[in-house]
Amino acid sequence: MKHRLAVLVSGRGTNLQAILDAAARGSLQMEVVGVFSDQPEPYAFQRAKERGIPTVFVDPALYPDREEYDAALAREVGACRPDSVALAGFMRILTPAFLDAFPGKVVNIHPALLPAFPGLGGQCQAIDYGVRYSGCTVHFVDVEMDSGPIILQSVVPVYQNDTTETLTERILSKEHLTYPAALQLLAEGRLKVQGRRVVISWEGRVPRQPQDCVLEWLKIKDIKI
Amino acid sequence: MKHRLAVLVSGRGTNLQAILDAAARGSLQMEVVGVFSDQPEPYAFQRAKERGIPTVFVDPALYPDREEYDAALAREVGACRPDSVALAGFMRILTPAFLDAFPGKVVNIHPALLPAFPGLGGQCQAIDYGVRYSGCTVHFVDVEMDSGPIILQSVVPVYQNDTTETLTERILSKEHLTYPAALQLLAEGRLKVQGRRVVISWEGRVPRQPQDCVLEWLKIKDIKI
Repeated sequence: MKHRLAVLVSGRGTNLQAILDAAARGSLQMEVVGVFSDQPEPYAFQRAKERGIPTVFVDPALYPDREEYDAALAREVGACRPDSVALAGFMRILTPAFLDAFPGKVVNIHPALLPAFPGLGGQCQAIDYGVRYSGCTVHFVDVEMDSGPIILQSVVPVYQNDTTETLTERILSKEHLTYPAALQLLAEGRLKVQGRRVVISWEGRVPRQPQDCVLEWLKIKDIKI
Repeated sequence: MKHRLAVLVSGRGTNLQAILDAAARGSLQMEVVGVFSDQPEPYAFQRAKERGIPTVFVDPALYPDREEYDAALAREVGACRPDSVALAGFMRILTPAFLDAFPGKVVNIHPALLPAFPGLGGQCQAIDYGVRYSGCTVHFVDVEMDSGPIILQSVVPVYQNDTTETLTERILSKEHLTYPAALQLLAEGRLKVQGRRVVISWEGRVPRQPQDCVLEWLKIKDIKI
């Protein structure tokens, strides 16, 4: 049976689209079983509806505090019996009221090379700091923001004439490759969290560079992400 | 007249060697005019002596506090009239008593992609955190540790089976290219600090990716670093 994925969104949902496309092509062996949002009509919902995937708006205004909201969100998400939960531009910090319902099963993508530039506006932070490289990070979610064990990262150069917009686009093109690749590793049960490190097991052996191996393996299987 | 460089060391001095080699080959148009240490006989001193460069041990035990030590160090370093001061494995944090004597002229190399993993053991920190990429950073030195404006960075992958030793070696091989390249930009007066960003000017135009341009330019000039 296919690995069941719930996706939480707040906005455009370009990473949701990359996940849906990879799933449709078969390079990501997951079924997206529900898309959830704290916004009433995010553009991401349209992407889900085009594939016939249920969308659920959980309204923060109906709950007195974060814990009660997160408990309600956990009930809604839990109803679709997901094996994993992917945050894709979900703009709220999740409390244990949500995370404890899906222990070790929630992943996120962040537009910076964590631990550098956590929090909002990782791309803008990178430009303001003056780094020469940035990228994206797929990681397990824990209670502290953007601090969970890292599954995969990808690097992009930062150009001197970059704006937040041009850097965001460059990072986003890497996100759309890196997130499905990381989720596929999860679907295959290849990720083992040891302390705060994620070890990827690979045909019985440990690959040297996880990301290279992922891309190489997808090439061998002739599946494009 | 050649740009005069003072180098501060505490240990092996492999980056000093890379600087000396680049200067000997002409790919770094600087003259190393003195090598200074807080240690009596660092191996780096031997490397300097082989090139006939004066070495000076400034003994911390002779001074009551950091400020007085740094003032004495500044006097010794200042005596060789350097245009710039490069830290190459110098294991003390410099106070304004030193830095104010060479404003905007002190540079350092750090074995991590700052702002990630500042301070001691950047390589070990990277492995413990579980990042997929690390690297090195050449930056101007300000009063806060490892926080000054970034000149150049280089990236290396972190392998799952890396130890601190193997990662240190991989980063070091990048350091030995990146530090002379950054110093050559300094020698040519191409670095302009704007806020906390360093803008590299390049034949009247701003290059897109500083490091690519540096390496490309060295190739064009047929000089190897």
